[in-house]
Amino acid sequence: MTKKAFTVVGGGPVGSLLAISLARHGYKVGLYEGRPDSRQTSIYQGKSINIALSDRGWTSLEKIGISADAKRQAIPMHHRAIHGVEGDLSSLPYGKEGDAIWSVSRGGINEQLLDIADEEPNIKTHFEHRLVDVDFESATATFKVKNDKQLLVEADYLFGADGAHSKVRRLAHNLPRFSYSQTYMPQCYIELNIPANADGSHKLEKNALHIWPRKDFMLIALPNPDGTFTCTLFLDYSGDPSFESLQERSAVKAFFESNFADAMDYLERPVDVFMEKTAAPLFLVQVFPWSFNRKVGLIGDAAHAIVPFYGQGMNCGFEDCAELDALITKHDHDWEQIFPAYENARKPNGDAIAELSKRNFVEMSDLSGDAEFQLRKKIEAKFSERFPELWTPLYSMVTFSPDIPYSEALRVGDEQNRVMEKIMALPGIEDDWDEQYVMNQLFDLASETLGGGK
Amino acid sequence: MTKKAFTVVGGGPVGSLLAISLARHGYKVGLYEGRPDSRQTSIYQGKSINIALSDRGWTSLEKIGISADAKRQAIPMHHRAIHGVEGDLSSLPYGKEGDAIWSVSRGGINEQLLDIADEEPNIKTHFEHRLVDVDFESATATFKVKNDKQLLVEADYLFGADGAHSKVRRLAHNLPRFSYSQTYMPQCYIELNIPANADGSHKLEKNALHIWPRKDFMLIALPNPDGTFTCTLFLDYSGDPSFESLQERSAVKAFFESNFADAMDYLERPVDVFMEKTAAPLFLVQVFPWSFNRKVGLIGDAAHAIVPFYGQGMNCGFEDCAELDALITKHDHDWEQIFPAYENARKPNGDAIAELSKRNFVEMSDLSGDAEFQLRKKIEAKFSERFPELWTPLYSMVTFSPDIPYSEALRVGDEQNRVMEKIMALPGIEDDWDEQYVMNQLFDLASETLGGGK
Repeated sequence: MTKKAFTVVGGGPVGSLLAISLARHGYKVGLYEGRPDSRQTSIYQGKSINIALSDRGWTSLEKIGISADAKRQAIPMHHRAIHGVEGDLSSLPYGKEGDAIWSVSRGGINEQLLDIADEEPNIKTHFEHRLVDVDFESATATFKVKNDKQLLVEADYLFGADGAHSKVRRLAHNLPRFSYSQTYMPQCYIELNIPANADGSHKLEKNALHIWPRKDFMLIALPNPDGTFTCTLFLDYSGDPSFESLQERSAVKAFFESNFADAMDYLERPVDVFMEKTAAPLFLVQVFPWSFNRKVGLIGDAAHAIVPFYGQGMNCGFEDCAELDALITKHDHDWEQIFPAYENARKPNGDAIAELSKRNFVEMSDLSGDAEFQLRKKIEAKFSERFPELWTPLYSMVTFSPDIPYSEALRVGDEQNRVMEKIMALPGIEDDWDEQYVMNQLFDLASETLGGGK
Repeated sequence: MTKKAFTVVGGGPVGSLLAISLARHGYKVGLYEGRPDSRQTSIYQGKSINIALSDRGWTSLEKIGISADAKRQAIPMHHRAIHGVEGDLSSLPYGKEGDAIWSVSRGGINEQLLDIADEEPNIKTHFEHRLVDVDFESATATFKVKNDKQLLVEADYLFGADGAHSKVRRLAHNLPRFSYSQTYMPQCYIELNIPANADGSHKLEKNALHIWPRKDFMLIALPNPDGTFTCTLFLDYSGDPSFESLQERSAVKAFFESNFADAMDYLERPVDVFMEKTAAPLFLVQVFPWSFNRKVGLIGDAAHAIVPFYGQGMNCGFEDCAELDALITKHDHDWEQIFPAYENARKPNGDAIAELSKRNFVEMSDLSGDAEFQLRKKIEAKFSERFPELWTPLYSMVTFSPDIPYSEALRVGDEQNRVMEKIMALPGIEDDWDEQYVMNQLFDLASETLGGGK
């Protein structure tokens, strides 16, 4: 029996994982990446770009049969280290004892997956192949290779795993009945760096995600194994303060010194970097369908680019792969059924994590702000600890509960919101929050609204 | 003083009206249309395409100084004529005594506006000029003219009034921070025809919008001055029944006969037309910004393509023109201020009418269906008649109240919904709806929620 052939466009983490999954199901896979092989050419220019991986990501890797090699190089972050304006530090755990999100090197995990792909005899990987065109009827792809030559690649099926700016997706704009949206957030971002100490140790607490929440903007820092931190400043594109309003060097300096005073001892030339770099935009992409003519599919950021505020981008892409992997088995390689089943299963979850990620900017950037918000979190945490079967906090559902789909987490989270609004409306809640009657009322509301189980 | 020059892309109703408005403010206007001049070549192929125009449209025309010539050829529709499955007819007025929406010929109003444009010495109109490219920095446009020659047109400013499929807008997809969405509705449509009687009179009641509401699909008919009706069948693209499922001639025939029995006497070859025609998709387009570099703007369907279920598409486009007209005066020709003021004023209204139009499919297609829905309308109508200062029904706010912006109508309509949900939850409302206590309760709720005024 001859197994069919796939073209996978995009050799990032999702494309590599998809290729491995397909190959292990017996398909022939051509994996095509526009950039050079990072294992041979340093395309990261010495920069550590890291991302957060959490239970959904790890679980998805395991489901596809990738052992947790990647986890050995990842750094667990058990809590948020919150840096106040006055340099005061506080800590907010991510979940229960032992729960953590993991800082992993994007390049590192990508290279590990490419290494695994190289061991699969069914996968042939091609770098420096830039996609030019796709025939959505035949799944034939055209790539531009060295010397501007064009290469025609035939296959039975094609997947676009080519990221937020997906060329496959943009080519699909012209197909009938393709709904798409691209929405810019008000914020842009630049990356900054905190170097390691001379002995290679971290200048800030290693096992934490550091946040300087300033309500309308924020700075975050994620640890790298080499002792450095990769920092990201999220700030509005326009308004005051914004990347547009901060043009003068003196204003930028004053902005950093008044808002991130304690970080100024660690950050590497933040004012220079701010002046030199162009702020990158943040945008969401939502499309439907995710497949065309039962021949071409979209996966990962190509299907659902989201904003990074929930640290779920790669987790969601890996979940796409795991879902597809399971559907190949379930539908016994019948792609007439797999494509629609895949997009119908994943689209609601892609939409849900997009919505959750958007909302989470407020959550993160207001962490040390609004007193009512803080009180609410405190009540929720106490109740959840007392009655875990009645109440899993939204963050934990999204991050530590891979069995709860994103769409379900969003729905339950909204119900929890309505319950908490009633609790916060109780007269004197500021003083009484620790009283038994508050817990009782919450118990009644939660049992009633959330159906007493989930 | 030399007045600046505008390129207006698109010679439809909105483009023509915009050109007139700009010319009357003293600007030089080049009006470019891709198709031939319909006044010289019959591009409508004998077909009457009609649209609904209502108070917003007429008011906007008046504001720009266009006398209501167009209204003389328009046919007022005072009520919905609802055709039940059994051929039973009922009537539902659109508003108060004297309120009407107007069936106008799209070609007719377009040609009237082009005639007026021709009389303006500042306007030069060019047909068969197809837009190829726009330089968004300089507002220079490239058109393809006869013999495939390319023509470069320079101007100070450019407006894309080139409709739902706007080329100007699609070219803007590549600009930084441009958010856009294109969303397909589940329904598609085909147009059918009811011919005139031999004496030129209408086969159905002339001064009504005829609806055959069948919940998941519907047929509508709008009168034309020549005695014909233009009918539109809205039906899902896929599912059952749908354009996809109705492939066999016998099935199509059975579909028409069982659902539109009374219309079969009038419709011109409906089964043939259904078999021959390709169903057209319905989609919404939402974008932001509506202007680029203070040089290029979008207007009408190019900025906000909506679905036709509220009959507001051209009304909204004409309102865009009237708003812009007023802002030119207000900001004394300072386009650095006019562009942002225009898009900030109109965007929320474009979004609101998009949302309202989407929702109105359910309203229209369920008109003779759901008993609770009908009861609710009846209670609302009664209350509104008794206390007009407390309650203007949503349909009337949208259609007959040009002083209420669409966004305000949507907001108040949602508040009315919440009030009516409480009323409909009263025990025994089915029997008691005409009792005084229901009106009293509605009075209290409305006074409280809607602020006792608006």
